[in-house]
Amino acid sequence: MNQFGPVPGFLFSGVHCGIKKSGDLDLALVHVPGGATAAGVYTKNIVVAAPVTLSRSHIDGSETFAIIVNSGNANACTGPQGDRDALEMVTTVANRLGTTTGTVQVCSTGVIGQTLPMSAIKKGIPHVVKALSTDGVSDFSQAIRTTDLYQKAVRDTICINGTTYTVQGVAKGAGMIAPNMATMLAFVFTDAPLSKAQLHALWTRVCDRTFNAMTVDGDTSTNDTALILTSGDADEPLSDEATAQFERCVNNVCNELAHLIVGDGEGATKAVTIKVTGAPNQDAARQVADVIARSPLVKTALHGEDPNWGRIIAAAGRSGIDFNPALIELQFDDERLYADGAWCGEKAESRVHTVMTQPRYTITLNLKCGEASASVLTCDLTAEYVRINADYRS
Amino acid sequence: MNQFGPVPGFLFSGVHCGIKKSGDLDLALVHVPGGATAAGVYTKNIVVAAPVTLSRSHIDGSETFAIIVNSGNANACTGPQGDRDALEMVTTVANRLGTTTGTVQVCSTGVIGQTLPMSAIKKGIPHVVKALSTDGVSDFSQAIRTTDLYQKAVRDTICINGTTYTVQGVAKGAGMIAPNMATMLAFVFTDAPLSKAQLHALWTRVCDRTFNAMTVDGDTSTNDTALILTSGDADEPLSDEATAQFERCVNNVCNELAHLIVGDGEGATKAVTIKVTGAPNQDAARQVADVIARSPLVKTALHGEDPNWGRIIAAAGRSGIDFNPALIELQFDDERLYADGAWCGEKAESRVHTVMTQPRYTITLNLKCGEASASVLTCDLTAEYVRINADYRS
Repeated sequence: MNQFGPVPGFLFSGVHCGIKKSGDLDLALVHVPGGATAAGVYTKNIVVAAPVTLSRSHIDGSETFAIIVNSGNANACTGPQGDRDALEMVTTVANRLGTTTGTVQVCSTGVIGQTLPMSAIKKGIPHVVKALSTDGVSDFSQAIRTTDLYQKAVRDTICINGTTYTVQGVAKGAGMIAPNMATMLAFVFTDAPLSKAQLHALWTRVCDRTFNAMTVDGDTSTNDTALILTSGDADEPLSDEATAQFERCVNNVCNELAHLIVGDGEGATKAVTIKVTGAPNQDAARQVADVIARSPLVKTALHGEDPNWGRIIAAAGRSGIDFNPALIELQFDDERLYADGAWCGEKAESRVHTVMTQPRYTITLNLKCGEASASVLTCDLTAEYVRINADYRS
Repeated sequence: MNQFGPVPGFLFSGVHCGIKKSGDLDLALVHVPGGATAAGVYTKNIVVAAPVTLSRSHIDGSETFAIIVNSGNANACTGPQGDRDALEMVTTVANRLGTTTGTVQVCSTGVIGQTLPMSAIKKGIPHVVKALSTDGVSDFSQAIRTTDLYQKAVRDTICINGTTYTVQGVAKGAGMIAPNMATMLAFVFTDAPLSKAQLHALWTRVCDRTFNAMTVDGDTSTNDTALILTSGDADEPLSDEATAQFERCVNNVCNELAHLIVGDGEGATKAVTIKVTGAPNQDAARQVADVIARSPLVKTALHGEDPNWGRIIAAAGRSGIDFNPALIELQFDDERLYADGAWCGEKAESRVHTVMTQPRYTITLNLKCGEASASVLTCDLTAEYVRINADYRS
């Protein structure tokens, strides 16, 4: 499932410094010796962890040389001490790498409200610097994990006009019942020669369609961070058309990472896209999709592979968005289940059940009251809770 | 836990008619031979089940003689056939009892999207009429259950100026992960002589503070219904002061029913009130309380009896309501855990842990930016999901 490899211009590492009692890797570093152009999307939570505040203040600088990440402790709700600790992490890394603090991003993920074990981290930094390697992506992705059941890395290359560009994505975060409840960190490392403005615009669009479409706008943890860095080491600058082609490649990598995060719910076996079309506007489409995607009754039906359209329609009905229930249409991939205010019958239900046996598929609800659409990714819900709800129909 | 008894003027029954394959009771009836004054609060979902549409059209009539309830099938999203079936249930009951259709309320709860097995129901109605008894409240409350792990009945009497009034509450619905996801039916049967207008005003206020405070406004299923009926058989009309006293009694009964519903989550062991104070307005207070109450990370911490204030504050921070995190105060019952932007220390945490071992307590978050407050009731979250999250700190 995971795809690792070198990215021209990048070094990676991951070590155990002592934050996690389990002995697992807990300190990760990315270093771009020649400097990278970077863009970042950060949490919209008004309770913001110290590393996010610091990294956000650094992201608009012209160059980024490193990202230091610790797992096991989020350095969130830690007051002025937290701010000092985040700065000390950045300063220590910058000194070791011979760069300035403003060129270093810092991310922390784990328990909220406990101060960082700084002596362990400070002792660990020389080791994580020493471990840097072109082949270190796997260690890096291991060292950023918290409750993740598996590591998450997706890689692609794209050849445009004879030049090959690498797109290496790495993420952490587990879908659980709602995708927003664990801190998400996502990174894309590439070598495509894009300007800061190009990269920022591209990254904002990609995050809106992928990582931010696992949850409602603003519904983020204290530490969520998504960064893209390019070493710009590739030979040719990109034309507008080539940039669009490159963006699709980044989007595909991030979409796959989003599926891996959502699929990492406890016991989750399916990643299902909830698509709402025919909405009066995009916010309305997103609102309806989100209420469906979060409904535990819908999520248990997904697990039970039960074409329980009533639960989906009932969730849409309480979304606060107005529509005419007699007009709506519901389909699973290409199979219609409900149209013109009525169930499409047993044969249709049987075909939909077959769609639902797949690990990934799309449920489309057409509200028939506009032109706008939006998608949200969700997972099925298992756990003991299912015992009551998935069997409810039998 | 359950409290049953006769209510002057009322007859109750519950039988098995064949909707539930398990053989459990599935058809319930309340009959007030002398006629009752009634008030109702119905779902705000725009996808509304046929029985709700019909009952809502009957509730403004001057008298109510009966409520017929079936469990196992919600008669929701069943189109014109559903409307005909709901009307046939009402008509059949009205004919049997010698009253008119407009004086009968009908409720259905269970699976959405399947038409009612009308032949079983029509065969069952003579039996449920025949079974009517002054002591039938327990059968009635059994026959309205769906996924409920236990039946829910709460009873109180109140003596005002020498006259004793009975308040018998019965409900069905299970809290699960979000309190809104199962259909809730709630009934209060009483003999206090109140006018239709008095009863309607009282019931709206009580429902807002109890059944509607288990979830956000409008966030209801297709079938949610809360009815109060009074036979008015008590001797004396109530003064304004006595009416207020009576309302407190009804409120207490409904508050206890709400606790029973919320406490009926799969594996739930605690019913916790999330109270937000110091908010700029009541909607804002409700919004923050609701986001906290629904957070799976908060709910697993409640289960683990873990004073994880970071999760509570992080949930508040993503609620969309603006406040200054450095000013807020958090307490569990009377024990403070977080104040003036800082944790109150290990001794405070130890006292809070003791509070959290109780089956019921209140968490109060003071936003310090206004005078408004609101409460939402929630339960802890267990299931396998806990394995990862409740142990996350250790």
